[in-house]
Amino acid sequence: MKADNEARLFAEIGKTNKDVVTEFIEGLVETYPGLQYLDGFPEVKVVIRADASGATYDKVAVISGGGSGHEPAHAGFVGEGMLTASICGDVFASPSVDSILAGIRAVTGPMGCLLIVMNYTGDRLNFGLAAEQARSEGYKIETVIVGDDCALPPLLGIAGRRGLAGTIFVNKIAGAAAAAGLSLADVAAEAKRASQMVGTMGVALSVCTLPGQVTSDRLGPGKMELGLGIHGEPGAAVADLQSVDVVVSHVLKQILSSETNYVPITRGNRVVLMINGLGATPVMELMIAAGKTVPKLQLEFGLAVERVYTGSFMTSLDMAGFSISIMKADQTLLQRLDAPTKAPHWPVGSAGNRPPAKIPVPLPPSRSTKSEESLSRPLQLSEQGRILEAAIEAAVNAVIVMRDSLNDWDSKVGDGDCGSTMYSGATAILDDMKKYYPLNDAAETVNEIGSSVRRVMGGTSGVLYNIFSKAAYARLKANSDSTVTAKQSFEAAIDAVSKYGGASAGYRTLLDALIPALSVLKERLTAGDDSSTAFVLSSEAALAGAESTKDMQAQAGRSSYVSAAILATVPDPGAMAAAAWYRAAALAVKAKYEKASS
Amino acid sequence: MKADNEARLFAEIGKTNKDVVTEFIEGLVETYPGLQYLDGFPEVKVVIRADASGATYDKVAVISGGGSGHEPAHAGFVGEGMLTASICGDVFASPSVDSILAGIRAVTGPMGCLLIVMNYTGDRLNFGLAAEQARSEGYKIETVIVGDDCALPPLLGIAGRRGLAGTIFVNKIAGAAAAAGLSLADVAAEAKRASQMVGTMGVALSVCTLPGQVTSDRLGPGKMELGLGIHGEPGAAVADLQSVDVVVSHVLKQILSSETNYVPITRGNRVVLMINGLGATPVMELMIAAGKTVPKLQLEFGLAVERVYTGSFMTSLDMAGFSISIMKADQTLLQRLDAPTKAPHWPVGSAGNRPPAKIPVPLPPSRSTKSEESLSRPLQLSEQGRILEAAIEAAVNAVIVMRDSLNDWDSKVGDGDCGSTMYSGATAILDDMKKYYPLNDAAETVNEIGSSVRRVMGGTSGVLYNIFSKAAYARLKANSDSTVTAKQSFEAAIDAVSKYGGASAGYRTLLDALIPALSVLKERLTAGDDSSTAFVLSSEAALAGAESTKDMQAQAGRSSYVSAAILATVPDPGAMAAAAWYRAAALAVKAKYEKASS
Repeated sequence: MKADNEARLFAEIGKTNKDVVTEFIEGLVETYPGLQYLDGFPEVKVVIRADASGATYDKVAVISGGGSGHEPAHAGFVGEGMLTASICGDVFASPSVDSILAGIRAVTGPMGCLLIVMNYTGDRLNFGLAAEQARSEGYKIETVIVGDDCALPPLLGIAGRRGLAGTIFVNKIAGAAAAAGLSLADVAAEAKRASQMVGTMGVALSVCTLPGQVTSDRLGPGKMELGLGIHGEPGAAVADLQSVDVVVSHVLKQILSSETNYVPITRGNRVVLMINGLGATPVMELMIAAGKTVPKLQLEFGLAVERVYTGSFMTSLDMAGFSISIMKADQTLLQRLDAPTKAPHWPVGSAGNRPPAKIPVPLPPSRSTKSEESLSRPLQLSEQGRILEAAIEAAVNAVIVMRDSLNDWDSKVGDGDCGSTMYSGATAILDDMKKYYPLNDAAETVNEIGSSVRRVMGGTSGVLYNIFSKAAYARLKANSDSTVTAKQSFEAAIDAVSKYGGASAGYRTLLDALIPALSVLKERLTAGDDSSTAFVLSSEAALAGAESTKDMQAQAGRSSYVSAAILATVPDPGAMAAAAWYRAAALAVKAKYEKASS
Repeated sequence: MKADNEARLFAEIGKTNKDVVTEFIEGLVETYPGLQYLDGFPEVKVVIRADASGATYDKVAVISGGGSGHEPAHAGFVGEGMLTASICGDVFASPSVDSILAGIRAVTGPMGCLLIVMNYTGDRLNFGLAAEQARSEGYKIETVIVGDDCALPPLLGIAGRRGLAGTIFVNKIAGAAAAAGLSLADVAAEAKRASQMVGTMGVALSVCTLPGQVTSDRLGPGKMELGLGIHGEPGAAVADLQSVDVVVSHVLKQILSSETNYVPITRGNRVVLMINGLGATPVMELMIAAGKTVPKLQLEFGLAVERVYTGSFMTSLDMAGFSISIMKADQTLLQRLDAPTKAPHWPVGSAGNRPPAKIPVPLPPSRSTKSEESLSRPLQLSEQGRILEAAIEAAVNAVIVMRDSLNDWDSKVGDGDCGSTMYSGATAILDDMKKYYPLNDAAETVNEIGSSVRRVMGGTSGVLYNIFSKAAYARLKANSDSTVTAKQSFEAAIDAVSKYGGASAGYRTLLDALIPALSVLKERLTAGDDSSTAFVLSSEAALAGAESTKDMQAQAGRSSYVSAAILATVPDPGAMAAAAWYRAAALAVKAKYEKASS
């Protein structure tokens, strides 16, 4: 279904394969300013380096190509240090001789041109004829034919060893050799040697979709195809789906088989690995396959894995599945693979040697100010400590007595547990305060309130109150204690809740109690009120703000799905709880101050 | 089916989302030696730069992250010049506070740390709490929340603007600013500004598959989803499938709507574009979408498209479809986007200004030796010319008389048209020779034979005989005429046919006539025979070789599907035809030489 939908989106009925490829090339050159194409659509579909012009090009030109439908291969590998041009056929069809000739003429200078051809009859013949024609025009041409398929037994003849993703390695190695200034003969020799060192086998989980056609239903559910081609042709075998572990083992055994002896790799050798997605397989799954393959190669086959290339390099339209390519490596070959290239789709970041992959999780830094002795209730409370204790006690008790009201309101506009959640946080604070809150240190006490909340309160409100405490704590720590700092830390806490909770004033949340409170607090302090008076006045604003939530449309949380008519019957329980603890704390502080000063 | 098969391959029943993500990270670090992870699986899933250690790191650390399932985002964007760390949650689940804190502690130095958070409640809360906790530990932390979704109308509140692929731009810009040595405040300011400049909207053709779960069948055939989320949540609307043209227009209108005013982009502005694949959409289709989008932005919206990024950057497991992100650009922002990075999945090759995308198809070079006067039959034939004419005439007549036999043999082992195909080539050669073959120039005549063949002979045999002629011609041109050159050009022709046709001696093809002939020719010439005698003797070897194909198992072409019992009853028709024309030519040359010397 997905494949059919995609086929319909990208290739309307009546649109030919030709159109799809020309449109692909148009998008490609829009994306990569380093690429150009020859103005010969629809017959000539050639992507070339914008900086390599035939007449003056002073390196060996390296050209690959073939039928389209394997993107990014090969057009995505055109760029300094890799291919000089890519010749694009129609989908799954070899490019024409004229198209290949046009590409050769466009980029070949006096150093000559290497054609890298995948082993399919059509490609061999058309590239071959173009090569001979170009030679007769005076160009120096060499060709290397790549057949890296390891799926079929050798006896089935020349058709058996198809060109697959290993061709990408050959392209890179030849391109790097050419960029290094080597002669045509030497570039061709390196490419040929590379082609003899690499073996590939694929596994498909679905069949690819040709543009404008309905997907073949060849593979049923729970089946996979081993040793597939990349043109929708059947694989060597259909098998029951296995885990990726089992599949990888099977594929590796086949590639490295000493019976077929397709690749000259034996224990102790150094190799590079490519995990190639076939078009519709996500990066996550390719990486999982890579993660399974490397230790198998190391432990079961005794090979040193020098480089791993994971991605979708040589695809088959939207086929699901992947292929594994293994190439014997030596220093020269690694150097070619590591050499810089501007080809857009050659993988970045696989070069170079491998440091340890995992490192220890760091512990909280020693500059954390929490020390052991701060985490116990002081034997003797300071004046400030007593005020703080009274405020906390009053605040949590205010929440505790509201449990049923909060639950009742919440059952109308939310999931009905606001009271219970707040209750559990409040009782935890009360318990923990008695046990170990360092009440003489306001900052650390606020921090501990956050930890108590985090321990028992679930859901968004638990995280938000934790954020509230942590933000207040961080601000309190940053300055010496003072009324100004208390106000600033309250503001920092509100800002953090607003930012991370995603709500502002008027969203029908606890902020509709706290924001008006902060506003009045700042106003009264600026007007010269003493801090406890300002606190009490601001708490009236908190209550009024919480009540006003009845008239608000919810903008966040579950309440946003509830109708305005229902919302108008109740205030936001979160705002009411916040107003209640704030109000109680303010009154308690005021009472303590009055007592202290009387 | 594909999705279900893939889900089963990569996540066996009972395997949790956690396992999938840890296995992904293991593969990721195998692939990219520049990346490491913190050793805290399964709770702590953090990918970091191998070269950035917190205590000594002298740049602002840039951290992003979120639920997994969006690969390569964000772990694939960790690297110098982009992210310093990525925090990976389970699939589609926000990472834990502890995981985020571990990442912050691992890479944050004295310059501080910017957290780039996608606008989802869980991410906002967990990153927010981690930020506050880290601040309380003494770290300098800023956070920027990205909500670039343009699919939903603004009135639906804060939940509406989800973080989508535009976050990748913010990551890059912040990473480049940090790499440039900017302060935390400045890096955060650039990131925030970037987040306000970008809008994104997606279109899905299928729903994604959660590991170990069966794919939702929400989208039927012929339907697409507009304005989708990236977690399998429904899109803003389901619509009938349209062509990519129509879909792109719709998406652009929505992003650039002056009603929602989500992005501050107006006519005449400079923009950058991202075409982002959602997981299962091939590069070809993404490029087609890019190719459609750029001219629309230019012509319909009057925007200058400065950069195009096409690829799969922020996916949704194996969802089919793509999203479009448009960002207002200025010089500073382009500089940040163009700045080098080692992040493996940041696209290569999109930077820089754009030269003309298409250039003319080059004509054959003037060094082509084919001149007008060479393309007419000479009024007076030279001695060599008369011999060549006689040889060609004899050769093609031998093929002409064999038509029915060749067809008969071919009907047993192939598709029955070998005689007819060869006949059409032979008669074309005969006609063309009389009209315009430049018979006094052997090389050019051989070249023209190839052209005659190419004009009328279809199929593999037409291409192979064309290759044969072109290869012989190229070798003849390279040297002055002589018997040695004739032999060498014959050898070059055979080599080319073998290489591009993919067959060798014993494959039951025309080479089984020509290879023995070449062998005897070389042997007799070395032994001192005159060239016409050697030619005749070699033609006996050709006949014998062709007859011997009866005993051969076919290794190439259609005959490779025919049983040995049937093959044994007939010789290979291609080999018989080759032997016949070669034999006839040899006898004609011999007769001419004898007549000339008598």
